[in-house]
Amino acid sequence: MAKCLSLKEIFSLGEKLIDQEVLVKGWIRSVRKSKTFSFLVLNDGSTQNNLQIIADSGLPNYEAVASMLSGTAVIITGIIKQSGGKGQSIEMHGKAVTIVGPVDEEFPLQKKAHSLEFLREVAHLRARTQTFGAIWRVRNALQFATHKFFNERGFINIHTPIITGLDAEGAGEMFKVTTLHLDHLPKDKGQVDYSQDYFGQETSLSVSGQLQAEAMAIGLGKVYTFGPTFRSENSNTKRHLSEFWMVEPEVAFFELEQVAELAVDYIKYLITYALDNCMDELLFLNHRPMEKGSVLGTSINEKENYIEEIRKVAQATFTQISYTDAMEICSKSGKKFEFPTHWGAEMQTEHERYLAEEHFKGPVIVTDYPKDFKAFYMKQNPDGKTVRAMDILVPGVGEIVGGSQREDNLEKLQNAIKEKKMNDKDLWWYLELRKWGSVPHGGFGLGFERALLYITGMTNVRDIIPFPRTPKNATF
Amino acid sequence: MAKCLSLKEIFSLGEKLIDQEVLVKGWIRSVRKSKTFSFLVLNDGSTQNNLQIIADSGLPNYEAVASMLSGTAVIITGIIKQSGGKGQSIEMHGKAVTIVGPVDEEFPLQKKAHSLEFLREVAHLRARTQTFGAIWRVRNALQFATHKFFNERGFINIHTPIITGLDAEGAGEMFKVTTLHLDHLPKDKGQVDYSQDYFGQETSLSVSGQLQAEAMAIGLGKVYTFGPTFRSENSNTKRHLSEFWMVEPEVAFFELEQVAELAVDYIKYLITYALDNCMDELLFLNHRPMEKGSVLGTSINEKENYIEEIRKVAQATFTQISYTDAMEICSKSGKKFEFPTHWGAEMQTEHERYLAEEHFKGPVIVTDYPKDFKAFYMKQNPDGKTVRAMDILVPGVGEIVGGSQREDNLEKLQNAIKEKKMNDKDLWWYLELRKWGSVPHGGFGLGFERALLYITGMTNVRDIIPFPRTPKNATF
Repeated sequence: MAKCLSLKEIFSLGEKLIDQEVLVKGWIRSVRKSKTFSFLVLNDGSTQNNLQIIADSGLPNYEAVASMLSGTAVIITGIIKQSGGKGQSIEMHGKAVTIVGPVDEEFPLQKKAHSLEFLREVAHLRARTQTFGAIWRVRNALQFATHKFFNERGFINIHTPIITGLDAEGAGEMFKVTTLHLDHLPKDKGQVDYSQDYFGQETSLSVSGQLQAEAMAIGLGKVYTFGPTFRSENSNTKRHLSEFWMVEPEVAFFELEQVAELAVDYIKYLITYALDNCMDELLFLNHRPMEKGSVLGTSINEKENYIEEIRKVAQATFTQISYTDAMEICSKSGKKFEFPTHWGAEMQTEHERYLAEEHFKGPVIVTDYPKDFKAFYMKQNPDGKTVRAMDILVPGVGEIVGGSQREDNLEKLQNAIKEKKMNDKDLWWYLELRKWGSVPHGGFGLGFERALLYITGMTNVRDIIPFPRTPKNATF
Repeated sequence: MAKCLSLKEIFSLGEKLIDQEVLVKGWIRSVRKSKTFSFLVLNDGSTQNNLQIIADSGLPNYEAVASMLSGTAVIITGIIKQSGGKGQSIEMHGKAVTIVGPVDEEFPLQKKAHSLEFLREVAHLRARTQTFGAIWRVRNALQFATHKFFNERGFINIHTPIITGLDAEGAGEMFKVTTLHLDHLPKDKGQVDYSQDYFGQETSLSVSGQLQAEAMAIGLGKVYTFGPTFRSENSNTKRHLSEFWMVEPEVAFFELEQVAELAVDYIKYLITYALDNCMDELLFLNHRPMEKGSVLGTSINEKENYIEEIRKVAQATFTQISYTDAMEICSKSGKKFEFPTHWGAEMQTEHERYLAEEHFKGPVIVTDYPKDFKAFYMKQNPDGKTVRAMDILVPGVGEIVGGSQREDNLEKLQNAIKEKKMNDKDLWWYLELRKWGSVPHGGFGLGFERALLYITGMTNVRDIIPFPRTPKNATF
């Protein structure tokens, strides 16, 4: 029996396979029919490249084969031959074509050009298109690159809880988790009685694994999480998802500078890994018909040499400036901003965008933000006004990394909790990390979808995760 | 300045470091004090092995150093020397010891022997113990091995949604997700009005990513998920968690036999990877003071050569039998079971345990279960009574893998949904996968914590995940 190979294996073996019989399984992309033979174009998901198969009219089921609609599932045996066609070195001469799963005229993906908006409506079929084949392979490559990067550096992957009684950011925009029957809620003095709920308390979906990661880092040294996180804010933008994946390293004995250095190394590693392993996919995505508009208003795809641009970033020194200097640059820019740029004002997307896209024309690390709009756990600077926070901003996407050195002094942490008027009763264990064997430590969170947007040049996070969750949308 | 190295790097370089000055950062395990010098035992989480450091009374802060309690965070500079001690090749002669984070008498982990039950109460400190250091490093190694295994075989990792409108198993025991204010629920005709909820419908936490993985496999060929899954059943046992991690590969053009083969290869790969990369950890765990009782009643740790036992499994052929034969073996065993063993009876833990532990004395693959107690999506056998399902049972744990070939025929799938009296309105897209380009396909789910229990020989899933979620427990 002929050996079954994936298209990736076939193209990797290439001319070594010439005159050999091979079995392939996949889906037809297109059929070009003539009386004496037809060209079948096949893909099996393993690679961006399609295999061209010549089906001779001598095949017993030639009429059926030549009439296949795109999307048809087939198993084909044939002989690998040098290709006469342009841009491909090998093709297959079909000996037997079995139609496994036919397609009828109703199949939504028959016609060639579909808008990304339309494809979101049929997200269960997106994996069958060239564009999404490319995206899912890049996503896979970069998740593997993530584990490889941290593994090579001695980090220990940990799984932090998804269901939590905490509000890690003190932000409050969380999804509630319950097994109570909402039509018959148990009440105690007029209020919902959570003691009867599954966990005996109010619980939500976690917005970050950081607090638990800190507990693991103080003992294991270097740890990282890579898991789903949740935001229930009503943000219907091209860069917000209600459910997204986040990478959060946390390292004992690290100060802010080392946190920033780690984040830069990781971003560069991701870009380099994509360039080394997914060039076919990146080329395809960058030569797609242009998207109108993008995450931040200008289309990344309008830039012809986007691949060269990210390649440069992988070798560049990232500019590092303080929040104070960043706001001064904005102030003096002469540009009209909607939001204020005085010291103490919150840095908005328009400011981030100006810094990364116009002023520095590349990624920027901004450090030492005013403590008032940063989380309680960030280490205070001696100035009493700022904290050891850092964000990394990239063109086209904005913030993709947010990190900080953590407050490791028990008393200062307790004061910060009081200042933010937070409830510390669930944080007893987090405070205890500062009580015994406390060490300087820090880490960051990288939004995986935003990093993917940046590297692929795609423009909407809904096209970067298989089944996006957004306000009023939990289909599939 | 002296080079900062992790203990793992130091032990890996070993005697090459002799007479070199090195900087280490970590936590003190113990101090043995005398007037002229003290032995400090240090660990930094990177390895099971501790570094012994000789602190001479000539150190300016000798009194403080010699009085450190275990758990103290330190930074130490010293010279690596050949060790005079037993079981270690190198040690360090301390030149400077900086106490970074002291510990007082209240620190719960000062005394040496703690029960696993007690340590669950202080899960935020577990990473500082030798036992849990070992477990988290094995967990990390096996998560990396999982990605490596599938990556090497051309699988594409996909992230399936956590928040879902579906009930993938038709089981019903799910956590609800909502942003509705439970004290002021919007009502429509006396019922909760979910159209006003965040997603505009009822949503829950996913029990499996399989259905979405199928949509991705039909296009990408080979995919796998590795993510958190949820069960809200009120099971307070040593092998149930409300939140656990599951690995779910799904492959187009696979039939049941190939699904089983993939599962066996994966289990063997995990065992081999642990033996090759975590031997120090496995040895430590297997020589811990014994646990009383285990997941299935007998302690795995009572077996002296547990490591040899799993090594054999990694090389063995797994026995494969049908459900029909398995129940007949139970029937004829002469053993008294609590639950019936006639054909059509559900296979219970006691039966699984008998088969794996007593009858076959090793892992068993059981296939072709009666359709009545299996999920709607499993492919029906021509006999009309059984489905192409398979479970893998291992001694000490029971079921660690459950898989099946999926029904790829639209009409049969629609009938199965009717027979199970399921609501198919949310499954339109899942049915469409069978409408256009349908192919035979299948996959399995492996409970990551159960696999870890099996490989480490630990006895309670609460000790295998950093912050376990169980009924009435969402602490940390």
